[in-house]
Amino acid sequence: MSVDDVLRHARGNFGRHVAQLKAFIAHPSVSSAPAHRCDVRRCAAWLAAQLRATGLRDARVVATGGHPLVFASWRGAPGRPTLLIYGHYDVQPAEPLAAWASPPFVATLRGQDLYGRGACDDKGQLLAFVAALQAWLQRRRCLPVNVLCLFEGEEEIGSPHLMPFVRRHRRALGCDLVAMADSVMGPGERPAVIYGMRGMLGMELELRGPRRDLHSGSFGGIVHDPLQALCELLARLHDDAGHIAIPGFYERVRRVVDAEREALRRAAPTDADMRRTAAVERDWGEAGWSMYERLALRPALTLNGLAGGHGGAGIKGVIPARALAKLSFRLVPDQDPREIERLFRRRVATLVPSTVHATLRTLSMARPATMDPRHPALSAAARACERAFDLPPALLRSGGTIPAMHGFQAELGVPVVAFGFAPTDGGLHAPDEKFHLPTFGKAIAALILWLDALAPRPGGDVARLASRPRCEVTS
Amino acid sequence: MSVDDVLRHARGNFGRHVAQLKAFIAHPSVSSAPAHRCDVRRCAAWLAAQLRATGLRDARVVATGGHPLVFASWRGAPGRPTLLIYGHYDVQPAEPLAAWASPPFVATLRGQDLYGRGACDDKGQLLAFVAALQAWLQRRRCLPVNVLCLFEGEEEIGSPHLMPFVRRHRRALGCDLVAMADSVMGPGERPAVIYGMRGMLGMELELRGPRRDLHSGSFGGIVHDPLQALCELLARLHDDAGHIAIPGFYERVRRVVDAEREALRRAAPTDADMRRTAAVERDWGEAGWSMYERLALRPALTLNGLAGGHGGAGIKGVIPARALAKLSFRLVPDQDPREIERLFRRRVATLVPSTVHATLRTLSMARPATMDPRHPALSAAARACERAFDLPPALLRSGGTIPAMHGFQAELGVPVVAFGFAPTDGGLHAPDEKFHLPTFGKAIAALILWLDALAPRPGGDVARLASRPRCEVTS
Repeated sequence: MSVDDVLRHARGNFGRHVAQLKAFIAHPSVSSAPAHRCDVRRCAAWLAAQLRATGLRDARVVATGGHPLVFASWRGAPGRPTLLIYGHYDVQPAEPLAAWASPPFVATLRGQDLYGRGACDDKGQLLAFVAALQAWLQRRRCLPVNVLCLFEGEEEIGSPHLMPFVRRHRRALGCDLVAMADSVMGPGERPAVIYGMRGMLGMELELRGPRRDLHSGSFGGIVHDPLQALCELLARLHDDAGHIAIPGFYERVRRVVDAEREALRRAAPTDADMRRTAAVERDWGEAGWSMYERLALRPALTLNGLAGGHGGAGIKGVIPARALAKLSFRLVPDQDPREIERLFRRRVATLVPSTVHATLRTLSMARPATMDPRHPALSAAARACERAFDLPPALLRSGGTIPAMHGFQAELGVPVVAFGFAPTDGGLHAPDEKFHLPTFGKAIAALILWLDALAPRPGGDVARLASRPRCEVTS
Repeated sequence: MSVDDVLRHARGNFGRHVAQLKAFIAHPSVSSAPAHRCDVRRCAAWLAAQLRATGLRDARVVATGGHPLVFASWRGAPGRPTLLIYGHYDVQPAEPLAAWASPPFVATLRGQDLYGRGACDDKGQLLAFVAALQAWLQRRRCLPVNVLCLFEGEEEIGSPHLMPFVRRHRRALGCDLVAMADSVMGPGERPAVIYGMRGMLGMELELRGPRRDLHSGSFGGIVHDPLQALCELLARLHDDAGHIAIPGFYERVRRVVDAEREALRRAAPTDADMRRTAAVERDWGEAGWSMYERLALRPALTLNGLAGGHGGAGIKGVIPARALAKLSFRLVPDQDPREIERLFRRRVATLVPSTVHATLRTLSMARPATMDPRHPALSAAARACERAFDLPPALLRSGGTIPAMHGFQAELGVPVVAFGFAPTDGGLHAPDEKFHLPTFGKAIAALILWLDALAPRPGGDVARLASRPRCEVTS
């Protein structure tokens, strides 16, 4: 039986899916801001209600030590595989607000793009799954496979409660495959199928100098300005060749085989594409690697915030008592964020001058993950995307981090398929985040087709899911 | 005729002077904040009213292109010298507000200290002059010399309109001597008589990288993070020995003669005193100079603010589009801020990598100033301080900057006597700024005595004011 009637049903209801996405964006579910705690909770309740309306009648909000999870299940296909769909309903802060052309929490259509915080990361991509389930359930009253939905509200703060929950409910969450859609498309706006993610280590470095702010006339040249000491320290974390200057940092970086570099070279954007997407004239980083290779295969250290002293208009003659930096490492297999944290703490202890005191705080941690790019679940995903988009998808490793990718592999021992439907100029984590609505429609179609392909058929390669080594757990 | 009755009158009215200072502090006259523009204007009107009440009937607010001046005069002693009293009624921003024990614009008495923004810089010290004039006028109905008062509202933003005004009204402001009190005391809380000030150059450096904020996962390691580029650039403005690493920067620094170093060594605080005042365990700076020498005789570069990226709680995975630093140079004779600005711009152009764009904005400029420490006006000031405080004053050069010091010397060709009555732990430009009230009382007494000493007497050395080379104008 063809799946075309389900696809048609989804197309006929597309206006309702867009309205649903607008309502989803209206919740300012900023997980890192304590002031938005209630908004996050309201967003979870709203999402559970949507799932119930879709036909997942047990959908509910599940409390954690932090922001709640949303869980739902459909087990109407006994004997068939079980798919766990993961996504997150929390969003990044919208600041700087002045840089948005329209308010971040009022979804606004301009051309074919819907603007708003979370439009693609991850509200739009999460809803593509929900819309696909809805089309199947409304049109056919059943799904091709059993489905669990697990949506969290803490992805943007490092998923602190997700894996402890998965560990405690390993049996109830038992499945054959995990899927998510929380990544960016490949070059030429081809959908991406992601077989690897970088890990992350987020840190905060505070330097304290004098016990109180000092007058820069009365003390300039005789005390070490903490802002100056901070710059001097941070400047020494990269060498002139763009390498991260922390002894031992690269020791566990897995050697990349030539075949993978070659395959990535064909699938990945060119340096010119990458520069255009980044909106920079010149790129930067380690020599000897293409931009996409640096992004996907090599670790990185970025400064994400600097603060201290006078930030307002004009000049204030002050030597501030403290200076603060936020920074994050992106890690690749087989780097271990706990080991990198130790190496970084040791490096800072070596670099910090005796004129200031340093405090390091660890803000988030996630392991890198990768799986065999030839896995049949990935191949089925690629075929579904190709049919829905009429373009071959890009099989990629991502520079970003979804802590759950490694977590599900390690805790449930199953492969994780990550789709990338976010436009490359989608403004993820940035002002004017947007989702291209025609892409939203094609993503729904791709997921409808993929769900269909997951149902076991004689000779179908997805039937081999359970008989293969389930996944390669890295680091 | 003894001056004791005037001193007694001031002591008897001390409670009123304290009340006046409290009312002065209540005006949040923050000159750098556009939101406080009206507060600055109201403060000027209040100050003019106080001067009228003191007996300076022509006291008035004078508009400029920025914040207004307050001008008043008393010309009842024809044939006698004319003293121009300068001060400023504007204050530094009070941020960070959370660091204050009591609200910065509500004068609060704790022990013998009156806390509040501007308590000593410069509202308290300015009012010491006003109280001294008031004691003379109320007790004797005259002053010992002719007096002009010129108080500005833009000292904390570099006095952009003061000297253009002085230049336009050079004849009306004709005088024999300028006095001010806007400095810190010497070691052992001895009053300071200041014969030199550092100049200043305030700059803002902005680096722009990508055209919009980027996701640090999707772009970390392939674009130059403007925060990282900023740290790398700023770290190269000092060498390992604490020297400012700008070619030509030290070229015009005047050689200090041994006699001056020796005199300063006797008058200035020790390194241990200085570290205590700065509330640091270890000092920092150029080798080969004591801390006070580095402060008074050597130029300095401090970073006064850094901003960019995420400053809030937790981590935000962002590479910001821009990064900002505020910095200021303190300059010594014969450095010229315009030349230093050129050298700095050239240095930044050399250091800025091709991966970012740099914009430099000049925020303020003031020339360094010094005068002959043996000038008779300084000697008379020292004797008046010694009698009022029962302690020999410290004859010092200050590390701070009062743009007017060089300006009055250059425009009016007269010597400038600068008193320092602010406690060394007074928190100038910092939270919990305070003025020690017994010091306020002694400062009023010292100024009453000094006014008396300025009146010509047979054989009195102040009579020689007009016959000496008026002052040494530097740089």
